[in-house]
Amino acid sequence: MKKITITGSGNVAQHLIKEVLRHPQLQLLQVWARHPEALEKLQLPSNIICTNIQLLQPTDICILAVSDNGIAEVSDQLPFNGQLVVHTSGTLPFSVLNSRHKRGVFYPLQTFTKEKDIDFKSIPFCLETEYEEDFEVLEEVAQLFSEAVYKISGEQRKNLHVAAVFVNNFVNHLYTIGSQICSDSHIPFAILKPLIKETTAKLEHLTPFDAQTGPAVRHDTKTIEKHLDFITDSLTKTIYQNLTQSIQNYHVKKF
Amino acid sequence: MKKITITGSGNVAQHLIKEVLRHPQLQLLQVWARHPEALEKLQLPSNIICTNIQLLQPTDICILAVSDNGIAEVSDQLPFNGQLVVHTSGTLPFSVLNSRHKRGVFYPLQTFTKEKDIDFKSIPFCLETEYEEDFEVLEEVAQLFSEAVYKISGEQRKNLHVAAVFVNNFVNHLYTIGSQICSDSHIPFAILKPLIKETTAKLEHLTPFDAQTGPAVRHDTKTIEKHLDFITDSLTKTIYQNLTQSIQNYHVKKF
Repeated sequence: MKKITITGSGNVAQHLIKEVLRHPQLQLLQVWARHPEALEKLQLPSNIICTNIQLLQPTDICILAVSDNGIAEVSDQLPFNGQLVVHTSGTLPFSVLNSRHKRGVFYPLQTFTKEKDIDFKSIPFCLETEYEEDFEVLEEVAQLFSEAVYKISGEQRKNLHVAAVFVNNFVNHLYTIGSQICSDSHIPFAILKPLIKETTAKLEHLTPFDAQTGPAVRHDTKTIEKHLDFITDSLTKTIYQNLTQSIQNYHVKKF
Repeated sequence: MKKITITGSGNVAQHLIKEVLRHPQLQLLQVWARHPEALEKLQLPSNIICTNIQLLQPTDICILAVSDNGIAEVSDQLPFNGQLVVHTSGTLPFSVLNSRHKRGVFYPLQTFTKEKDIDFKSIPFCLETEYEEDFEVLEEVAQLFSEAVYKISGEQRKNLHVAAVFVNNFVNHLYTIGSQICSDSHIPFAILKPLIKETTAKLEHLTPFDAQTGPAVRHDTKTIEKHLDFITDSLTKTIYQNLTQSIQNYHVKKF
């Protein structure tokens, strides 16, 4: 039975805590958080919650599910040496962790919302360890959680995180812009949801490059001009222009 | 039994032809296309395909599923008067149609790909007619196709089309950018697909505004700087900056 310690109380920490508790092969040894009140609704046994970081015990894997800015400090304060300590950040190298530890990364590539349960099974886990011999330990745990476990180097992970910002954060913001346009015109946003679903569903059969449609790729200048006339917010207009130009650049380059 | 005539041979025309043929309440009277060879694989009875537009007969609804640029010309050439003639454009008013006809719009808000079958049931149809009394006829047909039929004015439809460009064309292009970053780093694009699915699935429970996550909304300047350093293509960098700024504008405005 592997002993797992988790630090943090945010979205990722909470989902990981719940997931560890689901697996009899794992023991949730301790949880430490700067803001333990955020964990109250998980109703953890009181002997698991640790309010003083100095009381954390040696463990098989200590997962630092804290914000990027907090990782170095928390890893400095851990009161043990030579244990496997991993962070869950998509952007930072394992070297931000104190070198007293055997270091690694345990990055679940997903968007976590507290309000919504997550099925870990399909979440890709990107793993990296400082020492080859620790990889298997981390992989064993990740494979309990998920069917999609990848060995991803620090360099690859950085790139992947940028890609994730485009396909998740920025895509979601385009949904927000779409919903704003609808609400300005007294149209229910629901009318766009089938289109949103289909845009994603297409990726199962086509590359996004091949799936591209719309006025930009058709070089339909008349429609593009009309749309630009219609958009009043100047930053939204710039976004429309840049994305149109980028679509045209991609599709010129490749044909 | 309503008689339907369709002109056009593109994605929308082909899907509409197939859909009309599915409903015993409808009769596909004639199909005319400038490029009838594109319709060959539909294996329509030869008496339906019409190679000379002058031979089109009066019909209950004539649907012009042709490109925006072709609508006015085709409507001018139709050899009958006073029939209900509708186009399928998201951007143009019904007034582009020749005023000899009773005019209207029959706009399916979806992205059509020839290679992929479409279930019309969930596709929103946006309807508009010049004369109130024609609305019911058009609505009756749309309701055979779909459970989501909306009365949408010309002004609303224009706005909706801009919103659709954001949530479909531009979203898809962000997928392309993400897939390019992956391929540059020798990472399978598949690793991003669960994240893409979850981004969309969240919309069933949350508004996109409330679902926003990522470095922009967190004002995580350190991560944003790192990402910008990493992106080499200058237009992609500008898109990253603009979308980040837009996320921050939206979330400042509303809090």
